[in-house]
Amino acid sequence: MDEFELIRRISPSYYRQSSVIKGIGDDAFVFRATGDVVFTTDTMVEDVHFSRQTMEPEAIGYRALAANISDLAAMGSDPAFYSVSLVVSPEWTNEEILALYEGMERLGKQHGMDLIGGDTVGGKQLVVSITAHGYIHKGKGRYRSHARPGDLVFVTGTLGDARGGLEQLMQQRSSASPLIARHRYPEPRAHFASGLEPLQRVCLNDVSDGIASEANEIAAVSGVRVTIREQDLPISEVLLQNYPDQAVEWALSGGEDFELLGTIAQEDREALLAIAEHRETPVTFIGTVSSADAPEVILQSGKESKRLLRTGYTHLQERR
Amino acid sequence: MDEFELIRRISPSYYRQSSVIKGIGDDAFVFRATGDVVFTTDTMVEDVHFSRQTMEPEAIGYRALAANISDLAAMGSDPAFYSVSLVVSPEWTNEEILALYEGMERLGKQHGMDLIGGDTVGGKQLVVSITAHGYIHKGKGRYRSHARPGDLVFVTGTLGDARGGLEQLMQQRSSASPLIARHRYPEPRAHFASGLEPLQRVCLNDVSDGIASEANEIAAVSGVRVTIREQDLPISEVLLQNYPDQAVEWALSGGEDFELLGTIAQEDREALLAIAEHRETPVTFIGTVSSADAPEVILQSGKESKRLLRTGYTHLQERR
Repeated sequence: MDEFELIRRISPSYYRQSSVIKGIGDDAFVFRATGDVVFTTDTMVEDVHFSRQTMEPEAIGYRALAANISDLAAMGSDPAFYSVSLVVSPEWTNEEILALYEGMERLGKQHGMDLIGGDTVGGKQLVVSITAHGYIHKGKGRYRSHARPGDLVFVTGTLGDARGGLEQLMQQRSSASPLIARHRYPEPRAHFASGLEPLQRVCLNDVSDGIASEANEIAAVSGVRVTIREQDLPISEVLLQNYPDQAVEWALSGGEDFELLGTIAQEDREALLAIAEHRETPVTFIGTVSSADAPEVILQSGKESKRLLRTGYTHLQERR
Repeated sequence: MDEFELIRRISPSYYRQSSVIKGIGDDAFVFRATGDVVFTTDTMVEDVHFSRQTMEPEAIGYRALAANISDLAAMGSDPAFYSVSLVVSPEWTNEEILALYEGMERLGKQHGMDLIGGDTVGGKQLVVSITAHGYIHKGKGRYRSHARPGDLVFVTGTLGDARGGLEQLMQQRSSASPLIARHRYPEPRAHFASGLEPLQRVCLNDVSDGIASEANEIAAVSGVRVTIREQDLPISEVLLQNYPDQAVEWALSGGEDFELLGTIAQEDREALLAIAEHRETPVTFIGTVSSADAPEVILQSGKESKRLLRTGYTHLQERR
């Protein structure tokens, strides 16, 4: 299979997005934006970001695109397009490369996205570099800087599962586990995020490094204190059963759940819950936002308050 | 220098494009398109697409972005943004990586472009994957399918110089040669291309593989015959002096000149020349477009007409 045959195999026969003006096949791709354009890019390298020991080709493609869609979701946007630059090493067979593209197409289709370009070149090591475009209504970007004192802190889904799945893979347990499925095939929350459009102001960040890290980013950029209640962290039954001692730690610092961490005004609480129900997305309120002289994240465990660092480590809060 | 320090060093302190809504630093980048959006991406791998024996880091960055800008130019668009995904092998020093970014910035600045994202990750081999965005006025995309019987064929600049420069580099001649400069620091014709906006219809293709290849693409997609007059091919004095025997062959099939090959209606000839003069871009008329039962490219050498194949090879035309 040469490059032309590959392009033929992966090129879409039609475009899902009506904003396409000129599809694949000329010097570049042309689209007529239906709102503000959100753009992100993410690169994954074999044996650095993933291993073929633990990830099948389809999952590698799927998860690489999932990371990008999660970034689009974290801006509140509706996914529209993706492009793929692939460096392929000689160890990869044609079937495996097609499976990688199929993993992306499987997820892209769920989100109504079109493949709009890219290239496939030879090299020493597999590199998957993806870009993604989404649209948001003018002025409805959801930024990390949008948290305000008085806000409620929420998170979608459950936390720490992807970290639990990675642990099982490293211990070579059954690959049929739901935790492993979370690690391989995460579900980015774009459908929920674009549904938030009626709300005037939402602060959003996607959980790629763990909410300890994401909450600290929000606190820093918004200039606020974020307080998280440990007992309200959404942790799945299956994670609690398999890893009772690590579940809380992984909920705080386990990466790549691709859930959304956000804050909204208290008066938008019911509206948010209605959107979440309509979009079939579990949402849990886990904390509050308050004003602070210096940005920080506090973890409340029962009556104890500790400073939660970016890494997920805690230390006792100094009284001020 | 860790990744955060690198990001700090390469992040723009302000944006040149007024369409920027949310700059680097959140989950994704946001812009408000001022026209139809043109998007392209291109990936270069060390020891596949370039060698450090012949290219200094600054030139590697410069040329990688030049290839993308040339694609934007070939659609008639005004360059606006670029992003860079870099896989860095341990052999690269921090200074070399910064020089690579500086090469891009040097060219990006000339075209008023902003760096809008990307990532830098470790790997076995340097990979430079660039995306670029440009804007075109609605309906003013310049496609390969736009050639019509009766059109004039033109090309910008001179042809074959980059191929001559590569030859000199492989023979390890002086690196001060103007041919080597053309190879290392090509000038994509975006300023000229966006200046064509007043013309109703222009067919454009950028010369990345050689005009034999590009003319065949235009002929195939537009369904026409393209006839090129060998004696009118613009070949530089320096290429003729250094490589008198290969100059014509390289003008036809030498790649990476990043000039533009195009066709326009005959009545737009004077308008095109006026734009070319205003934008300080040499333009030469080298042929004509005619209707054909089957798309083809003909090379006229004196009284002889040969079929010009995609590869640059010719064979005697069958009489029909």
